[in-house]
This record gives sequence, C-alpha cells and structure tokens, in this order.
Amino acid sequence: MTAQVIKSKAAVAWGPGQPLKMETVDVAPPKAGEVRIKVMATGVCHTDAFTLSGDDPEGIFPSILGHEGGGIVESVGEGVTSVKVGDHVIPLYTPECGECKFCKSGKTNLCQKIRETQGKGLMPDGTTRFSINGEPIYHYMGCSTFSEYTVLPEISLAKINKDAPLEEVCLLGCGVTTGMGAVTNTADVQPGDTVAVFGLGGIGLSAIIGAQMAKAGRIIAIDINPSKFDLARKLGATDCVNPKEFDKPIQEVIVEMTDGGVDFSFECVGNVHLMRSALECCHKGWGESVIIGVAGAGQEISTRPFQLVTGRVWKGSAFGGVKGRSELPEYVERYMNGEFKLDDFITHTMGLEEVNEAFELMHKGESIRTVIHFDK
Amino acid sequence: MTAQVIKSKAAVAWGPGQPLKMETVDVAPPKAGEVRIKVMATGVCHTDAFTLSGDDPEGIFPSILGHEGGGIVESVGEGVTSVKVGDHVIPLYTPECGECKFCKSGKTNLCQKIRETQGKGLMPDGTTRFSINGEPIYHYMGCSTFSEYTVLPEISLAKINKDAPLEEVCLLGCGVTTGMGAVTNTADVQPGDTVAVFGLGGIGLSAIIGAQMAKAGRIIAIDINPSKFDLARKLGATDCVNPKEFDKPIQEVIVEMTDGGVDFSFECVGNVHLMRSALECCHKGWGESVIIGVAGAGQEISTRPFQLVTGRVWKGSAFGGVKGRSELPEYVERYMNGEFKLDDFITHTMGLEEVNEAFELMHKGESIRTVIHFDK
Repeated sequence: MTAQVIKSKAAVAWGPGQPLKMETVDVAPPKAGEVRIKVMATGVCHTDAFTLSGDDPEGIFPSILGHEGGGIVESVGEGVTSVKVGDHVIPLYTPECGECKFCKSGKTNLCQKIRETQGKGLMPDGTTRFSINGEPIYHYMGCSTFSEYTVLPEISLAKINKDAPLEEVCLLGCGVTTGMGAVTNTADVQPGDTVAVFGLGGIGLSAIIGAQMAKAGRIIAIDINPSKFDLARKLGATDCVNPKEFDKPIQEVIVEMTDGGVDFSFECVGNVHLMRSALECCHKGWGESVIIGVAGAGQEISTRPFQLVTGRVWKGSAFGGVKGRSELPEYVERYMNGEFKLDDFITHTMGLEEVNEAFELMHKGESIRTVIHFDK
Repeated sequence: MTAQVIKSKAAVAWGPGQPLKMETVDVAPPKAGEVRIKVMATGVCHTDAFTLSGDDPEGIFPSILGHEGGGIVESVGEGVTSVKVGDHVIPLYTPECGECKFCKSGKTNLCQKIRETQGKGLMPDGTTRFSINGEPIYHYMGCSTFSEYTVLPEISLAKINKDAPLEEVCLLGCGVTTGMGAVTNTADVQPGDTVAVFGLGGIGLSAIIGAQMAKAGRIIAIDINPSKFDLARKLGATDCVNPKEFDKPIQEVIVEMTDGGVDFSFECVGNVHLMRSALECCHKGWGESVIIGVAGAGQEISTRPFQLVTGRVWKGSAFGGVKGRSELPEYVERYMNGEFKLDDFITHTMGLEEVNEAFELMHKGESIRTVIHFDK
C-alpha cells in the first residue's frame, strides 16, 4: 500500500507579523529517508514568535511554524529503518545523521547533514511536502509541528518510550532539553557550584532544574518579572534577584552576593546586554558563561578582553548540546523515572485553533509554556 | 649578619613617554617573607613598553620596569624557607601562595594573595624597597628586573635548576611560557589539531613551539610582517599567511583554507579586531579561541552571539595558565632536556645602559626579544 496525500489542519504563517491562519493543507507522503507523523501535541516557543514577528532574517513565508512536538509515525518512506508506523517520536530541529564531520567529531551535536535545505524551509531533496492548491507551503526548522501531520527526515526523529505522555514530553523537543542540557552537558556544573540563571522563561526554568539535578550549591534566578520567582524557587532556585531593584549593574550585584562571582551563568533571554552581564558576573579565574538565548539579527555581544584573559570562559549552547537521536530518549526515561517534572512548565493547554492566543499569553509574560493538543 | 641596603644600578621610568634613565638606587634588605635577588639577565617585553608609553592606566611612576628576569638569591628575609642564598630563581609576576581561594581552586594560576599591593607598585606590606635619596621608587608587576638588585615576595619566585643559563631561561618568566602554556594548558591542543596563531612576536612564536610540541597537524602563522615567516616556519608553522595579501577578512581566508575553520586559535597581539578574527576563524561546533594579547585600556571585543551558540568557545590565558612555583621549574627542565630552544628568540643582547635601544628595536619590529645582560 502506497501512502497517499493527507489533508491536514494546520496553522499557516502567511507573512511576517500576521496572525497564523487555520488552513487545510495537503501533506505529501514521505519520500525515501523520510517519515510522516501525526502530531499529537506541540509547545509554543519564543522562537516561533521571533520568526513570525519578521525579525528573523531567515524567516520564510508562507510556512508552518512549530518545532517542539510529540507525535506518532503515520507512514515511512523507502529505506527508513530506525522507526516504524506507530512509533512515538519527538521531532528534532537539530538532526543526527551519525555520518557527517560534525556527528563524527564527538565534540558537538550540531549535525550539518541537512542544514542548507532545512534553512530554506525545504526537505533534503529541495522540495516541500506541504501545499495548498498546489502552491508550496514551507517547512520550519525541519519540524513544522503546527500541523496535524508533518513530514521529517528520518534523521530528525528521536524514537521514545511509548508510555511517555506526548503532551508533556513534547517540551523535551526544545526548551526543557535546551536549558537542562546547557547546564549538564555544555557547562558540566558540579555539586556545590554556584550558578546564575538570567531569564525565567521555559529555558531559564529548565536550566534551574538542570542545576538542581547537578546538585549546584546555590542557584541564583534573575528576572525583571518577579511573578516568575515562586516557580523558580519551587524548581530549586535558592536566590531570586530582580535587577530593577538595584541602582548598579546586575553583574556587580551578583559578584557581591557570591564573594567574587558565580562558577557558571546562563543567558536564557537573547538579550546581548544581559549576555555581557552574565559573563561579567562569573568568577575570575574559572567562571564560565553559556549563551542559550537567541539574539536579534545583527546584534553583537561585547566585553573587555581582560574578562577572558583573567580566566572567564564565554561559550554557547544549542539544544543543550544534546544529540537528539542517541541522547534525547534517555531524557524521556529520566522524566519517566521521576527525576524531573514537566507539568510545572505547562501553564496553558488549548487546541490548534487557539494558537494565536498562545502567542499573546507568551508576549504578555502570562505563560511559561502553552501546549497545543491536537485532539482538543 | 643583617642584610644591608645595597646600591644598585637600575633603569628608572620617571614618567610616561620618557626614556628610561640609568640611576643608582638604594635597594632595602628583604623584610619577612621577602627575598632580594641579583638579577643576571632580563628580557624586554611589550608590556614594559606599554606601561612606559603611558597607555597603561595602571602604570605608576617613578618605577623600575622589567618582569622577564633570571637571578640569584642574594639575601632572604625572616621566615623564608623555600629559597636560600645562591639559589637560581625566576621572578613571577603571577605569584603562587598555595593558600588563597584561587590557588586552592585547582582551576587557575591567578593567585590573588598580593594582587592589590602589587597593582599599586608596592610590596605586600604597602611600602617599596627602592628609593633614591629617600624618595620611593615603585615596583612593577612585582618584579622590577631592570635593576641589578630587586626584592620580591618569596611566593613570587620559582626556584630553578642551577645549570640552566639564566640569560636564556629568563624568557620563561613571561613570553615563552605565556605562549607555550596557552597552547598546552589553556587550550589543550591535541595531536592532529589545526591551530592558527595571530601575531608572530615572542608570544606568537612560543605558541607555535607549543603547538609543534603538542603535535598539531597544521599550524597557521599569521602576521602582516612577512619577515617573521622564516622563523615561524623554522619553529613549526606549516602555513604562513599575510592578511594584507587578501581582499577579504582574514577569518574567511582561514576558514576556507581549513575546510570550516581551525580547532584552536591564539591572539598574540592585543588587537581587539584580531581577537574577533581569531574567534571567527574557529570551526563551528568546537573551535576554541584563546586571547593572550593585552588590549589597550577600555578597548572591547565583540562578535555575534551566534558564533558562540554554534559551538565556538572564547577564552583567555595569562602566563599560559602556568602556576609559577610548582610548574615553571618543569618548563626549565624541559628546556634543559632539549624539548625546545630559546636562542631563536634572542635576536639581541645588550647591557642595561642600552635598554632604551631595546625598546626602539621592538617598536621597529626588528627584534623578537632583546635580553639585557647585567654583566655586559
């Protein structure tokens, strides 16, 4: 039996700054090395909003956004062997081919196998699987989870435990893994270390969970919105700091609080000024700052080189340094074993039809994560 | 027998921008925990010139410059146990007390025990050992090796093999250790790695030696003065690049030469624009750039944060990350075992009276290192 085109409901981004519009799109069957999945749930992330706003210079329209999903394999293309119909999967915007120079290096999770086509909103063969009346609709971050059905390369799917609730573990497809992995993979926080987390959105809160799991001795949570502090404390923050309450730069405040600075800091906002603060609040001699947030196009970070010459390290992290296919299933297992919770993040759930409301909640700072349930 | 004041010839920096002036200074005996040494040889380093120029905001006058020396213990103060009269020593501008938070961390060589007084040109008790007609002359970087006799804290002396030629191993007191250590300690270059070295002064050439000793597969030497290339090649550079020969940014040239960038880069000039180039010529996913050069006051480095988020690491190195008392003697042993040579660096030798000429040779780019011999 050959897979057929499926009619799928999807929220389409027709142009920058416009609300998403519900459409029925044609989803072509998966070609060789591709997999079509039925999306069961998807988080709504700031990166979706960033692209929709038009500020993302690489944004492509019309497209189907969404990249933090959980789904079930509906059909597979020729040659696909690692997943089969019915498998539960998490889509990966950072694939893992296992064959490219990057995958083989053992030093990074940034597989480059399909980077060029993915960046153009296309499948690896240079075409799209989405269309309306024969006109192409582009893919987004290789995922496009704001559609009931979507097609991904096999190398962009992590096969996970079928018992895991997709409407929760979908968050491991981006924000939670990004924050936790930055702490445990990229930074390698050790028991007793002092950690500062800048920005208490989904990624910052996940970084706090990561720091708590790493047994950090002190976890300083920083945000200008103090309504985030209760949850931060619940997840493990030992100190909460609102920069607006101080007359001096926040890095000076943190350095004084910690007798010289923190061992590790994490920027989880995408604000280049905060990235500088995060670096400069690190301890002389060994403090490391990890940039997780995505800054606006063309924006630059800066500091005095003396900050680095005196022993601070500036680095970054994408998807928490986690290799999606080989390592993400283990994150799901750790969740299933109760090592961390995800429901704290999920402040709202709704159907795909209400996705624009999810963006509004996020812009107002009222949600941590909204999860779209496709059966709602 | 109590040690007495010694009359010592010294080159005194009376004020910014003025040539050094030969004087006879009084050198007081060492107080408790201090050591007076007879300086036998000293290198002349760019940092001396930087301070003398007046561009160093922390420069203090009148003072005795020089920080790359080798000497013999003349007398010791009360309580000094680790060195005795006649021992051969290398002065350390980065001391090693073994007791402070930094020394105990196991993560840095930046001992902070005497930082405040050293930064003010004073001994740890807040006074100077140099004077002329009772007026104080200040210390410099805790070393002041442009004087026949100088006094240092015990924790600022590395005791070395007496068979080592002081007029060569004095270079291990700054430049050579800084460059070699940055490669082998701070960066941990591995066999086969590709390395880029920006700037072929004493530090850059030492970084090349370090890369060669680490068995780097490719060592790219970069300078706008092609007269440096012969020595760079002799020391191990496999490629020499003059940025002036290209129309595009040097980082693009290096990325193309290396199929994606280098594993490690080292900035050995102190130019903030070059620091950016050094970072951006690193390989996506894992490339690390180490800043060694000292930039001018108030200058800043900048880049797009995407450079870090996609896996590059920006760090710095001071004195090559080497702990002076516990690790520098081993560098001397390695030199004695023939693992590397120092005479390639020494393009000129002269007496202290000609020290201003040494600065001129350096400014003209005609010397790698001038070594002052006190017996000349």
